[in-house]
Amino acid sequence: MATAASLSASASGTVPARIGDSEFDRDTAVVRREPGVHDTELSAGWTIFGAVNGGYLLAVVGRALADTLPHSDPFTVSAHYLTASRPGPAVIRTDVVRDGRSLSTGQASLFQYDDEGREVERIRVLASYGDLDALPDDVRTTAEPPAIPPVEHCFGAEDAPGEGPVPGGSPIAERLFLKLDPATLGWALGQPSGKGEMRGWFGLADGRDADPLSLLLAVDALPPTAFELGLMGWVPTVELTVHIRCRPAPGPVRVSITTRNLAGGFLEEDAEVWDSAGRLVAQSRQLARALKS
Amino acid sequence: MATAASLSASASGTVPARIGDSEFDRDTAVVRREPGVHDTELSAGWTIFGAVNGGYLLAVVGRALADTLPHSDPFTVSAHYLTASRPGPAVIRTDVVRDGRSLSTGQASLFQYDDEGREVERIRVLASYGDLDALPDDVRTTAEPPAIPPVEHCFGAEDAPGEGPVPGGSPIAERLFLKLDPATLGWALGQPSGKGEMRGWFGLADGRDADPLSLLLAVDALPPTAFELGLMGWVPTVELTVHIRCRPAPGPVRVSITTRNLAGGFLEEDAEVWDSAGRLVAQSRQLARALKS
Repeated sequence: MATAASLSASASGTVPARIGDSEFDRDTAVVRREPGVHDTELSAGWTIFGAVNGGYLLAVVGRALADTLPHSDPFTVSAHYLTASRPGPAVIRTDVVRDGRSLSTGQASLFQYDDEGREVERIRVLASYGDLDALPDDVRTTAEPPAIPPVEHCFGAEDAPGEGPVPGGSPIAERLFLKLDPATLGWALGQPSGKGEMRGWFGLADGRDADPLSLLLAVDALPPTAFELGLMGWVPTVELTVHIRCRPAPGPVRVSITTRNLAGGFLEEDAEVWDSAGRLVAQSRQLARALKS
Repeated sequence: MATAASLSASASGTVPARIGDSEFDRDTAVVRREPGVHDTELSAGWTIFGAVNGGYLLAVVGRALADTLPHSDPFTVSAHYLTASRPGPAVIRTDVVRDGRSLSTGQASLFQYDDEGREVERIRVLASYGDLDALPDDVRTTAEPPAIPPVEHCFGAEDAPGEGPVPGGSPIAERLFLKLDPATLGWALGQPSGKGEMRGWFGLADGRDADPLSLLLAVDALPPTAFELGLMGWVPTVELTVHIRCRPAPGPVRVSITTRNLAGGFLEEDAEVWDSAGRLVAQSRQLARALKS
């Protein structure tokens, strides 16, 4: 099966990036200033219409937590989004809440600076970390992978006629390998299906394989299900909880997102991420505002 | 349709309790010692085999947050369970993280005391609150209520022959009105279905109607889906996120819980709560440890 790495490599003639040495790793890097304090720079490369992608932001915070906690793999991460982030400098302040044998829990806040240089909190996170490689390998998953056509029958922004629906507004699209199921692309042709679904193949444009931190990005990197529900406006995330259940195998992952409860100006997005070995490696749910378009 | 209130009332000959003056309200009461600090007593009445129910614990913390934040209804609540609570005194420390126009965010920790009187953190919560009554009433929910038989064809602990599967170990069962779908009761007869499902009718034994805080209890008050998967041991919650989407109508609610990803010693439980008006009033997901029985 074609992998993101091989597809990207053949497209650009370059060697796929490796975990630890890739665009995603460089743009989510954090520098420890002192214990519990990390400096970082939020990249403009992971924005859409000027807004920093929520999953990218969560991955940056997740990296600081991995550097702070005794365990390095996120198991369950809960994030409340407070104010809109923008590209530029940021500081992450972390605390160890509980240091356990197989799981530890931490809290982290990312701040940016206002015109007077005061810290303004963008996101606050509670997370429990563990060691994914220490988990027993009994798997009794009854969930089934999503039915997504083969990658060569799916479509990305680069396949859209002309400039596509988001001309000039989507730097993040250049950093992702994203091929969507045409059954969830009606919105791009002005014919939303009316079903709250979005799914497709996901990877990173430079061919880097997925890892637990990039899964935090993957669950929030597809277009909003709201587009297929006929709502074309902004759908800001209020809260996002991600469970990382397995270290993903190499190659692209399949992401399937479902909305079943659009009501009262809010909606939920349930995301599942399946790796090339057929494992359900991540599950998430976010609560988002469905602002009238 | 029979309501919890009318069934309880006819069974006991008493008037159903009201929201604000009920067993649940008394046992989740918090007393403000000073801004940001509330004292409480965790009741032995909401335990099973000595363990304080996680949803009850979350409701206690939720009440302190409602007293602290400018908005009084939980919208999305994320909780990480740190150490096991026990009946007895506790203190809740809350902070306002963000004070917004339609949503505000807070953080809360509940502590109990060790033998030296030092505070030991039991649970840490991040939550965003709003005003459920201010939401527009457009409802485009596509989810369907669970197919649960009428309440008179469902079964509770009081219907079990003899002492039932949890003799003397379940004070919480006396405080709940819980009638389970017989299709999810195979475990009680030594014949677990093998399907990660648990569902039934839920209310409070004294007839008090549901409200946003009691929904935090409802999502964690049914027997574990693990029982139907043949795992009869303890299934401790690591993390629980609840979305409250609507103020519930009077009467019993239907709770449906599903597990689809039992793997590596962990499982997720997805709960939905539907009110008597057919609204999907709450959705939650928890990550729990599936310890070998």
